[in-house]
Order: sequence, then C-alpha cells, then structure tokens
Amino acid sequence: MGKQVLEEDMRFEMVKKRHRESFEKALDEGKVDKQLQGLCKFVAKTKGYFTSSGCAGRILLLSVPEGGGKKEAYFHEKWHREVSFNEVWKGIGKKSKGELWFKMEPFILHIGCKGLKDSRKIISMMRRIGIKRGGIMVAKEGKFIIEFTGTQNIAAPVKKGDEILVDEEYLKFLIAGGNEKIVKNYTQLKILEKECKKALK
Amino acid sequence: MGKQVLEEDMRFEMVKKRHRESFEKALDEGKVDKQLQGLCKFVAKTKGYFTSSGCAGRILLLSVPEGGGKKEAYFHEKWHREVSFNEVWKGIGKKSKGELWFKMEPFILHIGCKGLKDSRKIISMMRRIGIKRGGIMVAKEGKFIIEFTGTQNIAAPVKKGDEILVDEEYLKFLIAGGNEKIVKNYTQLKILEKECKKALK
Repeated sequence: MGKQVLEEDMRFEMVKKRHRESFEKALDEGKVDKQLQGLCKFVAKTKGYFTSSGCAGRILLLSVPEGGGKKEAYFHEKWHREVSFNEVWKGIGKKSKGELWFKMEPFILHIGCKGLKDSRKIISMMRRIGIKRGGIMVAKEGKFIIEFTGTQNIAAPVKKGDEILVDEEYLKFLIAGGNEKIVKNYTQLKILEKECKKALK
Repeated sequence: MGKQVLEEDMRFEMVKKRHRESFEKALDEGKVDKQLQGLCKFVAKTKGYFTSSGCAGRILLLSVPEGGGKKEAYFHEKWHREVSFNEVWKGIGKKSKGELWFKMEPFILHIGCKGLKDSRKIISMMRRIGIKRGGIMVAKEGKFIIEFTGTQNIAAPVKKGDEILVDEEYLKFLIAGGNEKIVKNYTQLKILEKECKKALK
C-alpha cells in the first residue's frame, strides 16, 4: 500500500511538471487563449492541480471537405471574440472547398489532479456553478483528468463549393446569435476562474 | 475497510434496483427511444451496471423565448429519425414564440456502476470506439455514473416571431445535413451497443 501511494505521488509530480512546462511554453509562444490565462496561471501555481489543453470558446468558419468527417475539417477563419458582419462576410467570400459552416463553439478545458478525492472537489465545483457537461475522462493512479465544456453552440452551413447559401440578413442573425453566445460563454469562464481560485487552493 | 466495502455494495445494489425499475417502467410506457432499447435492456441484465437517463439523438425545432435561456426553451417539434422537408416546413409554419431553431442533437447516455474499476472499463471502451466526449460525472462510493455523448450537431435559427428566416432551398440543405448526421449518430450507437455487450458482461 505504502509503495503504491509513493508511485502515485511520483507519477503525479512528473505529470504536473510536464504539463506546467508545456503551459509555460505555450504561454510564451502566445498560444494560450487570453480568456483562459488567468485560470491556467492560477492552477499552475497550485500544489495539487494542473491544466492540459483547452480552448476559451470561439466563433469560426469551418471548412468540411465533400464527404469528409471531422478529421478532414479545417479552420477557414476563427475568432476568440465577438465578430463583425464585414469580417465574416469577407471570410465567406474567400475561396474554400466543400462545405463552409458558421460555428460558435463553447469553451473546453481539462484540469488534472492526483486522484479521486481531488477530482470530486473539481466535479462538485463544476456542478455548483452550473456547468453540466464534463467529467473524469482519464482515471489512472496519479493522473486524473477532468473535462469541462460549455453548452452554448451554433452550427449552420453557409456555403457549398462556390455557392453562398445565406443572404446578408440571415448571416446577420447568425452573427448576432454567435456574439450573444460567446459573451455568455466568456462570462461562465470568468465564474469558473473565480470558483477555481476558491476551491482549488 | 470491510464495513465500507459492504456499505458500497449495499448502496450499489439499491441504486441498481431503483434504476432497473425506472427503466422497466419507462419501457412499458413507451418512453425509451427505440434505438437505445437493445443497449439498455442488455445493461439492465448485467450484474454490475445500470443505465439512467438517455436520448438516442434527435432532430428538433426548439422554441427559445425572447431573452430566454435553455431553461425556458421547449420542444416545438421533435423526431428520433430522419425527417422530410414537408414535415419540418409545416412545423415551422405552426404558431411559435420567440426564436425557433432547427437542431440536430447527438445521443446522450448514462451508464452507472459501483466504483472506479468498472468505470475505467467503460471509459476505455468509449475511447476504443471513438466516442470523445464524456466521462465520470458522479463518483460516490457505490454509485459511479459515466456520461457519453456523440459530437454530431446542427443548430441554426429558422424563425423569429412570425418571420421565417430561411428559404426552402436553405432549409433543404439544413435537413440534408441533419439527416446525414442522425444516420451517423445512430450508427455510432449501434457500435456502442455491440461493444457494451462485449465489454460489460
């Protein structure tokens, strides 16, 4: 029993160190979404937790090749903020292949810890602030990872081949919805940051 | 230690019994989506697992009252199958309030078990068949619940107040996308059922 606990501790320390280093590198390279930086910096300093990959939530134009699935899809344009009609309209006008979808995707974040006890603390914090989607997705001794996602989303096709499927009025409606949802999404992320600072000391 | 194990066992037996009874009642009342029945019936017969709530995935018209959030939203129409242009068009024509959204939502399913060991078995099965979203969302001794969801989705506004925002061509495009995605979704559910039968004996 004592030996197993020691192994768990060692694994956790190794995993945490590795993730802290990747996070610092990503931060230096400007690859961490600014809405997630406060939260991730806080978590990196705690003794018992780390963050792995994450996205703050975004509005995007996703290119989905004919007959292709998610794996073949790529970002035609993406924004981690509210968008204007002009920039989206311009993005749609640019050459693209297959189908182009206007999407608003919610935040996704992974917080890691050593074991079940700390995971429970994270899960009850999630539920307390109304985050419904997520749970423990990795459950190895010394390496537990909890995933959180928001539930705001929009996904509507806007172009097929060279043919634009939406008119300006409809696109304005999509954008208004996307902007409203991305603001709600970032607000929820702020609440999450605040709660993490209380719960994960 | 021995006493704790016994309490876990007792809690699990109680929880499993309760969920099996709710499932049988729901089945009798025709409230279990037919694409989930095979899977849930199998799980109900196992010794170590149960299912709680679930949805096989659906196409729907969701009514979102002006300024309202998800809580105030309600189903205007819903289908657990492919849809035709005529029925959706007719649904959009019916009186509605606020905004009406055309949505395709993926399956969501909860499988319960006694503890971490069985949960790990479920999670590795999920990953093996390519289900990316989900994890342990309840982690009490004697009652662990794992959530699974698909990732296929469409969410596009189609009406505001009395004004229909989409033309027939665009709606046909949305419907084609929704039908394609719901077929993929049900195929994934079939694979899930097959794998559960292998992994959760």
